[in-house]
Amino acid sequence: MGKSEGWEIPAAEAVRVTPDTRVGDLDTNGTPGFAGGKSLGEKLLEERGAVLSDLQEKLFAHGRATNEHRSVLLVLQGMDTAGKGGVVRHVIGHVDPQGVDHASFGVPTPEEKRHHYLWRIRKALPRHGQLGVFDRSHYEDVLVVRVHDLVPRSEWEPRYDEINAFEKELVDSGTTVVKVAMFVSLDEQKARLAERLERRDKYWKYNPNDVTERGYWPQYQEAYQAMLDRTSTEHAPWHVVPCDRKWYSRLVVTELLIDALERLDLDWPAATFDVETEKRRLADS
Amino acid sequence: MGKSEGWEIPAAEAVRVTPDTRVGDLDTNGTPGFAGGKSLGEKLLEERGAVLSDLQEKLFAHGRATNEHRSVLLVLQGMDTAGKGGVVRHVIGHVDPQGVDHASFGVPTPEEKRHHYLWRIRKALPRHGQLGVFDRSHYEDVLVVRVHDLVPRSEWEPRYDEINAFEKELVDSGTTVVKVAMFVSLDEQKARLAERLERRDKYWKYNPNDVTERGYWPQYQEAYQAMLDRTSTEHAPWHVVPCDRKWYSRLVVTELLIDALERLDLDWPAATFDVETEKRRLADS
Repeated sequence: MGKSEGWEIPAAEAVRVTPDTRVGDLDTNGTPGFAGGKSLGEKLLEERGAVLSDLQEKLFAHGRATNEHRSVLLVLQGMDTAGKGGVVRHVIGHVDPQGVDHASFGVPTPEEKRHHYLWRIRKALPRHGQLGVFDRSHYEDVLVVRVHDLVPRSEWEPRYDEINAFEKELVDSGTTVVKVAMFVSLDEQKARLAERLERRDKYWKYNPNDVTERGYWPQYQEAYQAMLDRTSTEHAPWHVVPCDRKWYSRLVVTELLIDALERLDLDWPAATFDVETEKRRLADS
Repeated sequence: MGKSEGWEIPAAEAVRVTPDTRVGDLDTNGTPGFAGGKSLGEKLLEERGAVLSDLQEKLFAHGRATNEHRSVLLVLQGMDTAGKGGVVRHVIGHVDPQGVDHASFGVPTPEEKRHHYLWRIRKALPRHGQLGVFDRSHYEDVLVVRVHDLVPRSEWEPRYDEINAFEKELVDSGTTVVKVAMFVSLDEQKARLAERLERRDKYWKYNPNDVTERGYWPQYQEAYQAMLDRTSTEHAPWHVVPCDRKWYSRLVVTELLIDALERLDLDWPAATFDVETEKRRLADS
């Protein structure tokens, strides 16, 4: 991956988790790797969004023309108000809707609870040639579940290894997994929740439980730390994205997806017909 | 529906099918109802796309906040190269991807063939609060199926009434059905297919069968005419959109969706909590 305008360090390197990453020490207001400010960031988001769109079309074309499975799965995790929905709208919004398989995972339904926690996840995996987006994911089952002891430790503890094995299976079968953990500060979250209480067009986004969850901030930090420590693998590493500045988080995710798609190194599919023959057939039709 | 800038007749009226509509007499290069040209059309597409996006967000919010089913289903039918994919990219591309349920219907799979033709359609209907998009639809079963006698007449003939009943059921249960039949001329189709043979980034969109199908043009005209005559109903009327000018067809579909969403007359959902109490809880958190 090369560097692109405005970046001192390529985005994927700048936010890649390391063994030293400490959730509690993150500067959620930072812009790791990026030297520019908001106006450059917003300009680049548009420009790089167009690049992302072109690369996604190649993935889609590959999907139509071949049987060799390729797909990209973006996994978004983060506390409420971190900006997952904004990434979907402003990053994924750049690509052709027909090439996107989007799924969001809330509190499990009664039916989902009767199944293995990966059941609903497997059903929503991106199809061949598609860009999949998970707004929350199987990681809920080692985050909220762990924080609130929704199942005993003996049950969630093995999930880290299970998830690693599950993602290895995805990668081995041709899916590139791009994992993004989004972090806002406690103060920034308060400001964003307050905005939802000020505007009647935002009430529907507000859930009183979000305030309750703020009381568990240290436990969530601990659960996120364990997630990063135990499920950032060679085949599916985590990226830690500061999200107090929305323009930065959106730009980073755009770059991560561009990087993932470029590494697939896809070309336009070759013609499966004789071009000259078809030109004649068309001319005569 | 009011008139918006550039329109002499509101779009939904201008392209609404009438008992006099004759597929063979359509001016596929026309811009019914619209007084402006391409540059105004392209400017309006952006502006009205933003309006569409806001209305879609209200639909989505309604979906989150209530159990009263509301959804909108855009049904796109048209010959190859009419621009269905372009509508998805450039019209639906304006709205939040998480609010879109997109499905395309190609040649039925072996599994699909074992079921009623509406089976795969029902599985893909938009969820509550979603904007559904069908790229081709159940109408394939009275178009290609009729033209090529894929099933005997005794089998496709009853489908017109079945489809009307099916769509009535959708409308009764809260889904607004917006049906768009897209028409290009035989010459414009030739030019668009030729372009796919000139550019190696377009080969994947080319299918030799598209040229074969051009030989059945009169039969398709007849099948489209029967479809319009027999399935344009009060509850789910057809709109006939000339598509030789891509900017026009995209603008019209945008207006049709805006019209459908405006007629739902949705407001932002009321708060389901006491706002002042929540402000205090948040401040203390």
